[in-house]
Amino acid sequence: MKKYNIINWFVVAVLFFSVAGCTTNNKGKAKGQTTSTATIDPLPSWNESKNKTDIINYLVAVTDKNSPDFIPVKDRIATFDNDGTIWSEQPAYFQLFFAIDEIKALAPQHPEWKNTQPFKAVLDNDMKTIAQSGERGLLKLVMVSHAGMSTRKFKSIVKIWADTAKNPTKHVLFTALVYKPMLELLIYLQANHFKTYIVSGGGLDFMRAIIPELYGIPSEQIIGSTGKTAYDYNNGDPVIIKLAQLDFIDDKDGKPININ
Amino acid sequence: MKKYNIINWFVVAVLFFSVAGCTTNNKGKAKGQTTSTATIDPLPSWNESKNKTDIINYLVAVTDKNSPDFIPVKDRIATFDNDGTIWSEQPAYFQLFFAIDEIKALAPQHPEWKNTQPFKAVLDNDMKTIAQSGERGLLKLVMVSHAGMSTRKFKSIVKIWADTAKNPTKHVLFTALVYKPMLELLIYLQANHFKTYIVSGGGLDFMRAIIPELYGIPSEQIIGSTGKTAYDYNNGDPVIIKLAQLDFIDDKDGKPININ
Repeated sequence: MKKYNIINWFVVAVLFFSVAGCTTNNKGKAKGQTTSTATIDPLPSWNESKNKTDIINYLVAVTDKNSPDFIPVKDRIATFDNDGTIWSEQPAYFQLFFAIDEIKALAPQHPEWKNTQPFKAVLDNDMKTIAQSGERGLLKLVMVSHAGMSTRKFKSIVKIWADTAKNPTKHVLFTALVYKPMLELLIYLQANHFKTYIVSGGGLDFMRAIIPELYGIPSEQIIGSTGKTAYDYNNGDPVIIKLAQLDFIDDKDGKPININ
Repeated sequence: MKKYNIINWFVVAVLFFSVAGCTTNNKGKAKGQTTSTATIDPLPSWNESKNKTDIINYLVAVTDKNSPDFIPVKDRIATFDNDGTIWSEQPAYFQLFFAIDEIKALAPQHPEWKNTQPFKAVLDNDMKTIAQSGERGLLKLVMVSHAGMSTRKFKSIVKIWADTAKNPTKHVLFTALVYKPMLELLIYLQANHFKTYIVSGGGLDFMRAIIPELYGIPSEQIIGSTGKTAYDYNNGDPVIIKLAQLDFIDDKDGKPININ
């Protein structure tokens, strides 16, 4: 599949911020503290914390030509994890709920799934068995169930799902469960000419169907796990067909290998 | 390895231009034709041909908000082949000469190469046997000979080679053998806010060591063939190590699969 490099020639600014420190209220703001009317707070949803001050000081320094920490625009890159970092991963990876919904929708065409794991576990709502198969099991579930489908068709299915499916515990659209402080951080970085990337263990086609509009990050700056694909000329309307085989798990050590 | 997508969400403007139609003289210019002093020719090295007029008309149309062919800036993408398109591939792929020079330099550490193909052919200057192994054979030659080396070290070796090695028939640096009309076209597209990509069968690390400075195309917009790699924490100075195994040949059907 796809090869890409965002390390070479660039100083990679990998920013890790704990979402745990962010809330949408201002309890952390020191009493009596006022905001200057002359400046706009770039991170209004963040507590007035050391994390917030460090980020602002960092961006002031790297964009100041007279600072020793100055980074030229072409070298400004910030990469982010996704699940549990920019959107929620509770009560499980969002992609797992997509996979479950899809398996159930496709089950009538696959009577054999009733007696084949991991499909049986999905159809029996056996979340424990599904969870035990981990990220790899989840990706396989999505890949096997959509083998033979074009990436274009797959993405249109994901979009429809994202526009309608609701989180089982929060009862709102999954796309509503994005951390506001992190969206502010993305916008703040982009306004300072950082190229922002998502580098996630999540499925590439799944993320690219949802994230560009949701976060304002272009498709080609989203890097994730992939299945093997095949090219089909398709009588002059070429398509890329998804195969039932994992290509690369973009997680742990896989992340630095994959962005090289 | 690296997964990336430049198709989704974008209208991909794949531009194929034959270099055969370009020369640096103006023999093709109609007699008596004058250039307006009010406009600057964006493609001065091109013959006054239908190809040139078509390109200029195309760029005027897609950047005109009132044209039915208008393309929003975010969707402006142009992809180019490299060998024989932007730089020469005569008398053979430039990367082959790099591989030959490297094999000869590394041979003292590998006495077994004297009796092992394809290394024997290289050491014997047996170009016919080398050529028969094709693009795949060439990539294997580079990969096997540099297995165990970090991508960083590999790129520094390529840079030194590019700064010194000369084409055996033209007797100038390989980096001097870039088609001027194509560089003009790249600049013309970039000035009109096209994101320009190289999508080539050439080795990814090899191209990324040379092309960004030579063509003004950033490293992450260069897509090519890859070998497998491994991540090494290396006591806190992490590196990506090249392995002696092909990962993906970015040629023919591989190109659409790889840019998806």
